[in-house]
Amino acid sequence: MTEERFGGYNGKILRVNLSNGTVKIEAIDEAFCRKYIGGAGFVSYFLLKELEPDTDPLGPENKLVFAVGPITGIPLPGSGRHCVGAKSPLTGGIAKSEVGEFWGAEFKSAGFDVVIIEGKSPEPVYLYIHDGEAQIKSASGIWGKDTKETIGAIRDAENDKKARVALIGPGGENKVRFACIMHGLEDAAGRGGLGAVMGSKNLKAVAVRGTFKPTVANPEIVKALRKWMVDNLDKVANFSSFGTGGAMTYYEQVGNLPIRNFRDGTFPGVTNITAQAIKETIRVGMDGCFACPVKCKKVIEIKEPYEVDKAYGGPEYETLGAFGSSCGIDDLAAISKASALCNAYSIDTISTGGTIAFAMECFENGILTTEETGGIDLKFGNADAMLKMVEAIAHREGLGDILAEGSARAAKKIGNGAEAFSIQVKNLELPMHEPRLNKAMALGFMVNPHGADHCCNLIDLAFKDAGDTPSVTVSDAVPLGMESAPFDDIGPKKIALLKIVQLKKIIFDSLTLCQFLPYSYEQTAELTAGVTGWNTTVMEQLRAAERTMTMCRLFNIRQGLTAEDDKLPGRFFEPTTDGALSETALDPEKMETAKRYYYSLMGWDEKGVPTPEKLEELGIE
Amino acid sequence: MTEERFGGYNGKILRVNLSNGTVKIEAIDEAFCRKYIGGAGFVSYFLLKELEPDTDPLGPENKLVFAVGPITGIPLPGSGRHCVGAKSPLTGGIAKSEVGEFWGAEFKSAGFDVVIIEGKSPEPVYLYIHDGEAQIKSASGIWGKDTKETIGAIRDAENDKKARVALIGPGGENKVRFACIMHGLEDAAGRGGLGAVMGSKNLKAVAVRGTFKPTVANPEIVKALRKWMVDNLDKVANFSSFGTGGAMTYYEQVGNLPIRNFRDGTFPGVTNITAQAIKETIRVGMDGCFACPVKCKKVIEIKEPYEVDKAYGGPEYETLGAFGSSCGIDDLAAISKASALCNAYSIDTISTGGTIAFAMECFENGILTTEETGGIDLKFGNADAMLKMVEAIAHREGLGDILAEGSARAAKKIGNGAEAFSIQVKNLELPMHEPRLNKAMALGFMVNPHGADHCCNLIDLAFKDAGDTPSVTVSDAVPLGMESAPFDDIGPKKIALLKIVQLKKIIFDSLTLCQFLPYSYEQTAELTAGVTGWNTTVMEQLRAAERTMTMCRLFNIRQGLTAEDDKLPGRFFEPTTDGALSETALDPEKMETAKRYYYSLMGWDEKGVPTPEKLEELGIE
Repeated sequence: MTEERFGGYNGKILRVNLSNGTVKIEAIDEAFCRKYIGGAGFVSYFLLKELEPDTDPLGPENKLVFAVGPITGIPLPGSGRHCVGAKSPLTGGIAKSEVGEFWGAEFKSAGFDVVIIEGKSPEPVYLYIHDGEAQIKSASGIWGKDTKETIGAIRDAENDKKARVALIGPGGENKVRFACIMHGLEDAAGRGGLGAVMGSKNLKAVAVRGTFKPTVANPEIVKALRKWMVDNLDKVANFSSFGTGGAMTYYEQVGNLPIRNFRDGTFPGVTNITAQAIKETIRVGMDGCFACPVKCKKVIEIKEPYEVDKAYGGPEYETLGAFGSSCGIDDLAAISKASALCNAYSIDTISTGGTIAFAMECFENGILTTEETGGIDLKFGNADAMLKMVEAIAHREGLGDILAEGSARAAKKIGNGAEAFSIQVKNLELPMHEPRLNKAMALGFMVNPHGADHCCNLIDLAFKDAGDTPSVTVSDAVPLGMESAPFDDIGPKKIALLKIVQLKKIIFDSLTLCQFLPYSYEQTAELTAGVTGWNTTVMEQLRAAERTMTMCRLFNIRQGLTAEDDKLPGRFFEPTTDGALSETALDPEKMETAKRYYYSLMGWDEKGVPTPEKLEELGIE
Repeated sequence: MTEERFGGYNGKILRVNLSNGTVKIEAIDEAFCRKYIGGAGFVSYFLLKELEPDTDPLGPENKLVFAVGPITGIPLPGSGRHCVGAKSPLTGGIAKSEVGEFWGAEFKSAGFDVVIIEGKSPEPVYLYIHDGEAQIKSASGIWGKDTKETIGAIRDAENDKKARVALIGPGGENKVRFACIMHGLEDAAGRGGLGAVMGSKNLKAVAVRGTFKPTVANPEIVKALRKWMVDNLDKVANFSSFGTGGAMTYYEQVGNLPIRNFRDGTFPGVTNITAQAIKETIRVGMDGCFACPVKCKKVIEIKEPYEVDKAYGGPEYETLGAFGSSCGIDDLAAISKASALCNAYSIDTISTGGTIAFAMECFENGILTTEETGGIDLKFGNADAMLKMVEAIAHREGLGDILAEGSARAAKKIGNGAEAFSIQVKNLELPMHEPRLNKAMALGFMVNPHGADHCCNLIDLAFKDAGDTPSVTVSDAVPLGMESAPFDDIGPKKIALLKIVQLKKIIFDSLTLCQFLPYSYEQTAELTAGVTGWNTTVMEQLRAAERTMTMCRLFNIRQGLTAEDDKLPGRFFEPTTDGALSETALDPEKMETAKRYYYSLMGWDEKGVPTPEKLEELGIE
């Protein structure tokens, strides 16, 4: 096997058909790898190529794709990531989610770059991939179990404590439309309902193990970059100290923190739920991903009033916002418990929190009553109620069964104006950044192919200090000839900047590399050249990323999405009730103009459809 | 003065008003220099900013701009160039021409980056710029003299044998619409009639001298690139051995050589006029530009049948084609004599040859007769007739007075169908490359802001070998993510490639750097970073080049040009009479579609007008 591998790649795809239990190995060549890079590029390519129009996302015809890139698993901070994708049961478009932990690196060591999972198993199964081979095994004994029990059982069954496991809990099995795929107990391929797709296939887990070491064309280049990153860990010092959520108090002040379902502008309780508060109260350690010295993941311990299993890690920023400020809750123990439950059940904390916040606002407006909630006083700020709803959603009990469809579908079912409180784009609940504050990010939410995703946008700008200093990602676009523009601007310069930042994020997601690490555009190109041996540059990477973005767009169009789906909830065209944004709101006309200019920059027509010429130019058939 | 200079730049503009005899010095700052780079970028900026609509190109309101860039005059092969521009009396749009020799390096040493010459002197004058100062001096004694006499007289007057001189001969004084500005006796800012603009201002010459050495931020980078180029001189070995014109036999075979005004396809006499033939017969040496070891310029000596002064150098490829195959002439002595006359009189060899070829075809079709030619038998192949016409044009005698207006204006005056034989775009006669062969180059000719110019296009593709291998410039676009496309293709991939190659050429013209040297996109960025100290990349350079291309477009639009002017002569939609192209012709519909796609790639609307959004994005006010 080793003789066919090339710079950073195994050159191999594993294709598993669960309907008939077959496993095939296919080759990919270097030209293919160079064109699509890996990770998100590979996932988008195979989904676009292989899924028919009108695919039922929860039917056997959907495909689940896991992919790594050339960087995955090399000894470099941030290299422990991979991409998972499928047609989303939540959005109806592409679901494409990145995740850290050690799974991707281990999968690379197992000898593959991609696994494509097709069909539906008649009985619950799991997949075990190891050193160039793969078997489909029965999961009858573990179906229904939470993620911790499942991992333990699989490791026992394989007699392999080091196996890395991607898996679902009851949320995925119950096809909660925003179920995630957990990787270990702390890391999720979170968004778009990939866990529901896995559940629909009766696939409980994908366990991986291997001994192949990734090939590297020019180890000196990688070594130099690792040294640079290690020498520059102070650039992420704040992050290393606190993990995500260290800027929440600031966010609340400037108006970046969503409060009570994006309705309000002030939340004094924020100081109780920040990463600083976590460090001072419940934190007992920090965890990291493969090869990464940053260790940004919190380990916490809580006994009362909720017992939180420390194996599930502590809440990240998005979770703190989603179950915290967005539900009007400042109870750190409750938020941590909700986070752990989501990880145990494999449901996305952002959509879970967002959907509960939606239900709370419905409740406060009398659209939902205790009759529908089963007696639960589902007011903003009620931590117990929030936790009950998490359980109800994961197990699809009572109102939870409706909410498990996501806030958009739930709103339609509930009616009576509930739709005004469903805060999502393409049915994907918004992450914890205020679109009213950062207009370029708002546009990013609108046009992003998998809906309002915190990983694909200009959120960096939210970290601007009082002097409007661009953050790392934006300032490193200056050597590319991009000009900065005022923070709240949404003119052509800013849209061009949004495009290039989006493309950078796709480069990271394709390589695959952690977005939290401050590698510049130039460094990622250098890194790619070092690993692959290609004479490549930033521009080639940007064009590959543009190709991937265009493939995602084509996928969505084929599945029935249109420019009409590139729209923000009406809420953002009104100010918040108070706080930093109480006198400001987005201008619908300006956002529409901005959207059209974004389309033109992408080579898409007025309806957001990539032109045939652009496809030919990018080499998309 | 030295304290204000920064990486590669003097930070100074010299503004000379010839109407009132004033000389002013203005500052430019580093942000300005970074945005527009230099050379072509500076020229385009000042012309766009300072010229009113409907400017008379031969009136005092036209301005003549000379500019260098950060690279000019540093010790590196190819750094001895600069850009000259004005509104063109030939095209009515922008004239922008690059030239080598030593003038640019010397001008940089004199302490300026740009000289803007305004107004019109009441009497003939020349300008002497030296070490941060400038004087306007009388040229009454030298008006009417040829270039050799003029340089000698100015050096004597300044008592400075090392002064470098940009100047005109009688062609410029007589406002021949395609008069060039000579720099020394061998190098011309050739195209678009810049010499006529100089003549219209009663400006005979601009002599420069200085002792400032260009500042370099990081000399090690420049040193390493110089070493790379010197170590890789074998990449231009053919060029070093023969200069231009070494591939003419091959060109004739594949159909890249224009024959009898682009009418015909075979020219067996080509072997008599190649660079190889020159080396074997009349060559006595090779000359080079500032800091360049390549020495691609031929020195020749001929006594009979025409005495050719060796001070004027030998004919380049374009001249060999224009007076040779395009006039049906294979007499090397006559071509060399025509070349020397053009240099002595300061008229562009391409437009002169192209206009004579036009007249010859008119003559052969009876549209011109011996009555108009003054008895000259102006047939294709008549070398004596060709030489008489060169004299007649430069001195505006007889038919020469009409031809001195360029083939397009002459054709209108002559009438009777003469227009079919005027082979030009925007009135600028085509250079010596067959658009029927290389369709991307044909598109380049169409859209290039200063008309059909050999320096701004994909001519490199003409050098493809039988196996369709891309040449240096094209293959070095591959690391930028550009895909190659079949040689005769004119689809989106090829148009994207044309755009990026055009932009590379603008980068070279802005830096200023010789296009003949095989520096890659990456190397020019590295070089710029080394000289200026900026953290810059290829992408920033490409965006600056796109800005310059857009400024040129805006200039043309303001002066009245439209998309209708982006068109090829009808001849190219018909095959040649014989030869490699006898069964092939351009498809007008495909070329129109290609033009529109090019516009869209540039962010121009369907009428070729840059959109307001694109202007804002590029920071053009």
